[in-house]
Amino acid sequence: MATVAPGREAPPVSPLAPTAPVDLAPLAGVRLASIAAGLKKKQGVLDLMLMEFAPGTTVAGVLTTSKCPSAPVDWCKNNLGKGKARAFVVNAGNANAFTGKAGDRTVEHTVDAVAKALGAKAPEIFVASTGVIGQPVPQDWIAKHVPDLIKKLTRDGWHAASEAIRTTDTFAKRATRTTRIGFETVTIHGIAKGSGMIAPDMATMLAFVATDAKLPAEVLRALLKSGADKSFNCITVDSDTSTSDTLLLAATGQATHAKIATATDANLKQFRIALDELLLDLALQVVRDGEGAQKLIRIDVTGATSPKSAKVIAMSIANSPLVKTAIAGEDANWGRVVMAVGKAGEPADRDKLSIAFGGTQITKNGQIVETYDEKPVAEHIKGQEIHIEVDLGLGKGAATVWTCDLTHGYIDINGSYRS
Amino acid sequence: MATVAPGREAPPVSPLAPTAPVDLAPLAGVRLASIAAGLKKKQGVLDLMLMEFAPGTTVAGVLTTSKCPSAPVDWCKNNLGKGKARAFVVNAGNANAFTGKAGDRTVEHTVDAVAKALGAKAPEIFVASTGVIGQPVPQDWIAKHVPDLIKKLTRDGWHAASEAIRTTDTFAKRATRTTRIGFETVTIHGIAKGSGMIAPDMATMLAFVATDAKLPAEVLRALLKSGADKSFNCITVDSDTSTSDTLLLAATGQATHAKIATATDANLKQFRIALDELLLDLALQVVRDGEGAQKLIRIDVTGATSPKSAKVIAMSIANSPLVKTAIAGEDANWGRVVMAVGKAGEPADRDKLSIAFGGTQITKNGQIVETYDEKPVAEHIKGQEIHIEVDLGLGKGAATVWTCDLTHGYIDINGSYRS
Repeated sequence: MATVAPGREAPPVSPLAPTAPVDLAPLAGVRLASIAAGLKKKQGVLDLMLMEFAPGTTVAGVLTTSKCPSAPVDWCKNNLGKGKARAFVVNAGNANAFTGKAGDRTVEHTVDAVAKALGAKAPEIFVASTGVIGQPVPQDWIAKHVPDLIKKLTRDGWHAASEAIRTTDTFAKRATRTTRIGFETVTIHGIAKGSGMIAPDMATMLAFVATDAKLPAEVLRALLKSGADKSFNCITVDSDTSTSDTLLLAATGQATHAKIATATDANLKQFRIALDELLLDLALQVVRDGEGAQKLIRIDVTGATSPKSAKVIAMSIANSPLVKTAIAGEDANWGRVVMAVGKAGEPADRDKLSIAFGGTQITKNGQIVETYDEKPVAEHIKGQEIHIEVDLGLGKGAATVWTCDLTHGYIDINGSYRS
Repeated sequence: MATVAPGREAPPVSPLAPTAPVDLAPLAGVRLASIAAGLKKKQGVLDLMLMEFAPGTTVAGVLTTSKCPSAPVDWCKNNLGKGKARAFVVNAGNANAFTGKAGDRTVEHTVDAVAKALGAKAPEIFVASTGVIGQPVPQDWIAKHVPDLIKKLTRDGWHAASEAIRTTDTFAKRATRTTRIGFETVTIHGIAKGSGMIAPDMATMLAFVATDAKLPAEVLRALLKSGADKSFNCITVDSDTSTSDTLLLAATGQATHAKIATATDANLKQFRIALDELLLDLALQVVRDGEGAQKLIRIDVTGATSPKSAKVIAMSIANSPLVKTAIAGEDANWGRVVMAVGKAGEPADRDKLSIAFGGTQITKNGQIVETYDEKPVAEHIKGQEIHIEVDLGLGKGAATVWTCDLTHGYIDINGSYRS
């Protein structure tokens, strides 16, 4: 259940939500507990989650690049380098962001309480918070619930955990992959939340992934960075970056498989593919829950002078309000794509630019294709999944990003009065 | 009259439109003609304008930084360096952008026709076009109207000219300043168009300014660049940059005043102030006509490590859909301002950040002010002009930018089906 302002209806489930729900079976080395701790405005709904890991679990993370990060993000940044995790503690309702030094004290209280209860060290406890910004929270607001959480720990808690971290998400986000390392089967589970930055309670993108594989922290780091660059770092709902974005990956080491020492080990090939897929699955679920989203948009840029240049141009298209409103209006307005390429500031040549919508070439070498037939494009743009391809004709740089359209729903959700 | 899709009502005048209309008297050395040439979809409305200048007129310009500029922008870029102007030719209805080499030919035909009719050289004729992108235009589509334009040239044509360059602008934009150079009176007139990038016809920001002062082109260039940096380069409606943005300044030299050789001449002090004011006046009229705009937002950033850093942060706030929808909803959601500061990528320290709305301090040194009273802020945010101040507490860098809120009107205007 998402938190919504009193008097407002909970939003209906996004039309882009996956139709088949994903169930996550117990994963060796992971126990979970979720409770209704009264942190969300709406009482009686799950809002606090503890994910406990077996001793020896390694961890890696990717955090927001915001220069004004939340206190929990600062804590994670300072402790991920040690590479060990015994728990993730996650709450919804208050982001503990822009709460000054007091916010840091609250995080310390939380991790101390959890560490003590689990017989772990404080730097092995990671925290993430989502909700209102700038509202100071009492030091013990999570700490006091730790005994209750510990009591409720269960191997079957994945579903409840995915619910507890929701804010205005219209659906809970879960994904799983079964793969192998060498010849042995391993599993990866993930949960996520996020649907833009959400009003009236500020929100964020959070994702927590766990595997029973046994992998050194530096290997996890390399795998996660590479996977995030192709998934969570390639999505955008509204170009806004939260103060709290957090992606954590834990490996409990309970599976038995060939020892892995480096991220380039050939035995990791399948695992890497599966992790990349799972991360993209979760990331696209976030876009599918973009505030007001009616359409999922995939943008492929090729022919750029470098992959980085391609990404900048793809993001310029994906973040353009004019492109996004055109798609919302089912208008294949490719002129706005030209505009967005032009404003990106990256190398581009008007007379080499080619654009296709839904596989139909519209322009080639800077001019509209003479035989261009608008019919298949008009048909394509009425669908739920829109595909835009831009070939700059300059080099070999390529990038793919995903976004959603910009609709009245976004204004409704984000322009409402705070209660 | 703005062009709108058939079946749609012309939009009502923006609630932020200036209430007192500005009339522009004849200016020495300038004649104008405007006709209905059938270039806009809606027939019978003015859509083509010629602004003729006396021999000896100097010129400077600021053009879009888009890497995919229109053919007219390319022409202006190539010829502004010569510093002389005999005419501006401006049409609405088709932007002649993304029209390949054929678009360049069309521009050449236009300037040749005008140059011949005026006994001028082609590089003294400047062109600007606004409207649909990617629709090829016949080579003579403007050229054939030149005889009619020449016949209609009049010193009283300012009002009609400001009408002819409109697309979906809800009001025509004019400004004037009377000032002096040394002891002699000089006048500056300006007209502009723009209200975001406009659907269904792509649009742009165009502004044409003329003065009877006698100033070398290099002086004009310095004055215009400095003025644009504090006005047109400090406004944003939706973060999208057109392929056609054009600001031109002509000086007819008909006034008699002390000779000016450099932009730093003490005799230019009043003129510089007046020009800066006029440019800001026109730029704010564009923001006041922002698509769907209900509120004008001024953002002052101080305490940044440099002016450039301050500008990047101010623009990050001004372009944040979350900040803009919050203002539309009359919600003083300062947490989103923190978010926008954080995502700008510029130096910022969470614990030194101070934010004020409408002069009321909300946060200081990274925390909410203990005595913070929401009442005056709630009152301020209900007004039409919103003032946000952010002090980073790091250095002396400062910047001011203007934007408007993001409303359902923007989605209506930009998400409509193309006809």
